[in-house]
Amino acid sequence: MSFEVLPQSMSFAGPLALRSGAALRDYTLAYETYGTLNADRSNAVLVCHALNASHHVAGVYAGQPRSEGWWDNMIGPGKPVDTNRFFVIGINNLGSCFGSTGPMHIDPATGRVYGADFPVVTVEDWVDAQALLLDALGIDTLAVMGGSLGGMQALSWTLQYPARVKHAVVVASAPNLTAENIAFNEVARRAIVTDPDFNGGHFYEHGVIPKRGLRIARMIGHITYLSDDVMNEKFGRQLRSAVEGELAGTGYRYSTQDIEFQIESYLRYQGDKFSEYFDANTYLLITRALDYFDPAREHGGDLTAAFAKATAKFLLVSFTTDWRFSPARSRELVKALLDNRRSVSYAEIDAPHGHDAFLLDDVRYMCVVRSYFERMAKELSA
Amino acid sequence: MSFEVLPQSMSFAGPLALRSGAALRDYTLAYETYGTLNADRSNAVLVCHALNASHHVAGVYAGQPRSEGWWDNMIGPGKPVDTNRFFVIGINNLGSCFGSTGPMHIDPATGRVYGADFPVVTVEDWVDAQALLLDALGIDTLAVMGGSLGGMQALSWTLQYPARVKHAVVVASAPNLTAENIAFNEVARRAIVTDPDFNGGHFYEHGVIPKRGLRIARMIGHITYLSDDVMNEKFGRQLRSAVEGELAGTGYRYSTQDIEFQIESYLRYQGDKFSEYFDANTYLLITRALDYFDPAREHGGDLTAAFAKATAKFLLVSFTTDWRFSPARSRELVKALLDNRRSVSYAEIDAPHGHDAFLLDDVRYMCVVRSYFERMAKELSA
Repeated sequence: MSFEVLPQSMSFAGPLALRSGAALRDYTLAYETYGTLNADRSNAVLVCHALNASHHVAGVYAGQPRSEGWWDNMIGPGKPVDTNRFFVIGINNLGSCFGSTGPMHIDPATGRVYGADFPVVTVEDWVDAQALLLDALGIDTLAVMGGSLGGMQALSWTLQYPARVKHAVVVASAPNLTAENIAFNEVARRAIVTDPDFNGGHFYEHGVIPKRGLRIARMIGHITYLSDDVMNEKFGRQLRSAVEGELAGTGYRYSTQDIEFQIESYLRYQGDKFSEYFDANTYLLITRALDYFDPAREHGGDLTAAFAKATAKFLLVSFTTDWRFSPARSRELVKALLDNRRSVSYAEIDAPHGHDAFLLDDVRYMCVVRSYFERMAKELSA
Repeated sequence: MSFEVLPQSMSFAGPLALRSGAALRDYTLAYETYGTLNADRSNAVLVCHALNASHHVAGVYAGQPRSEGWWDNMIGPGKPVDTNRFFVIGINNLGSCFGSTGPMHIDPATGRVYGADFPVVTVEDWVDAQALLLDALGIDTLAVMGGSLGGMQALSWTLQYPARVKHAVVVASAPNLTAENIAFNEVARRAIVTDPDFNGGHFYEHGVIPKRGLRIARMIGHITYLSDDVMNEKFGRQLRSAVEGELAGTGYRYSTQDIEFQIESYLRYQGDKFSEYFDANTYLLITRALDYFDPAREHGGDLTAAFAKATAKFLLVSFTTDWRFSPARSRELVKALLDNRRSVSYAEIDAPHGHDAFLLDDVRYMCVVRSYFERMAKELSA
């Protein structure tokens, strides 16, 4: 069992100006911290989360031994990001459905649940909100770390608050989404929005949940998180009947609607589970934040120009079988940083697990991160 | 404008025994022929179609100048498959919604529309039905040709009717689907089946069409037909506003539901168009036929053993950026055929268009097919 943690929250009167032109007032951020902030407040590590995660990065809640945080294998006492040395902060992003202010909460302006009226939030907006919470905690300089969409937030920190970020650890991420990435997001969104139970995003007041759409969205997501290889290894063309021993694994059922292959069973299960706890409006908001992130955009697509202002030291990690955020995308970032003569460490890990690899245990991956944080710790004690 | 053609149809009393154990009686096959069958009936080429296609392979219908068949660039007078030399037959598969007996037709056993009760059909069943039609046309030996799912039918012909198939031309195909392929099919099916308008597959009698599901299915399909590269080249991160000149291309709309990127506009358009003409039950049937195809299955997964009985000469073609049916899958087939000392020509075309490449003009691809058919023509006249 991991160490015990307590979720916290902090309220802000705002208004927080958003990139869309809208503003948020009276908002709350859920967060957790692990370890101890040192005397000169120099050992803070902010961990940013991706689509389906939260401020609960590591540890377990009291009395819930199986409630490990989503990066509990990476962060904790004696782990690669060692909470005996570092003060780690996880913050739930605005628009989420896991504690921070989001579409399920009351809009103070109307007294009604936000629903689809929750303003569009961007990676940059999240970073601004995170920075305000760190201000309140008395933390000026820090390391920022994240995988996937969390990596985009780490990248954005180095551009929005260059003087504050000493180190950025960016895992399985990209400088922006490709057309194919956006396309998958769009199909997922259309599945949700065209579910009759979506009710234009105001389904809460109808007492329904667009579960059909959420299931489809999650199934699509899952396919893109895994590699073709690992799916073949885990499921291949195995029949469900073979697993259940029903037909001695020899016979097709010959049905278009029943589950025939194990991969179908797995995807349906994942979709069902997700639709029970994830908010549909949050799904739209977070996929849109992914779509919009593109720091090179205001530099005419020139990534090198975009990163001219970053002064952090960088560790980038990618995984060979990740086709959602491929190594080529990380290499674009490495090149832009090297063009600017920044300090960059880059590891391309030959792992079979696709995009999901960033959440899994891989000895080489864990060693790379551990070494990087050990070097950071030495800098601190020097 | 292409040459004019006339669709035909032929009815069969059956019963046609299906792999599922069910049987079809009183069924009709829609078909077209181009060119002239020679005196010794040796110049026939059967062209098998994939998911979203039909017997209308080439040519145009009278008075409809833009009604070109789906492989009109490949097949016709003077084209790579030259109808001045070959007698080409296109047959619409059972279960389709384009003319042959399918879910939209009346079940003679009940007097009601089949709907979801149309029996599950397999690639092998389609080949049996095609063989009966060729019997009726007086054609014994032939060449069989197809791309994608059509290629699977060509492969199955060489196993089900080895003595009849002189040549098999198999483009952008595979010996079976991977877990990832099945996964994408399953998501598309779930989108259709969970659309409230699906009504368990008997939506016709309710006067509705599960268009939401069909749209999602088509959007997913489209993403997998294209390569990441060609999507980036065609759409990239281009905003719709830039195309429409609205905001001088600089501004995001900041919306989760409106179209923001061109790729979204394209996918929605493709989905809408498809949902207007394609039958939902047909979509389920055809994707299931894809899932089920696996000739090595009854040989314990040994593809070489499966192809021991094939005696045809083979041309296989794959495309480097096809991630749906990758070149590696074609190479598995080449290996199995070479293990059996079969005559195999194999071309791996470096084309950027993904799976869709098999339908497009690529000089090298067209030349490869043309050369192969010229060799075939020489064999005939020898």
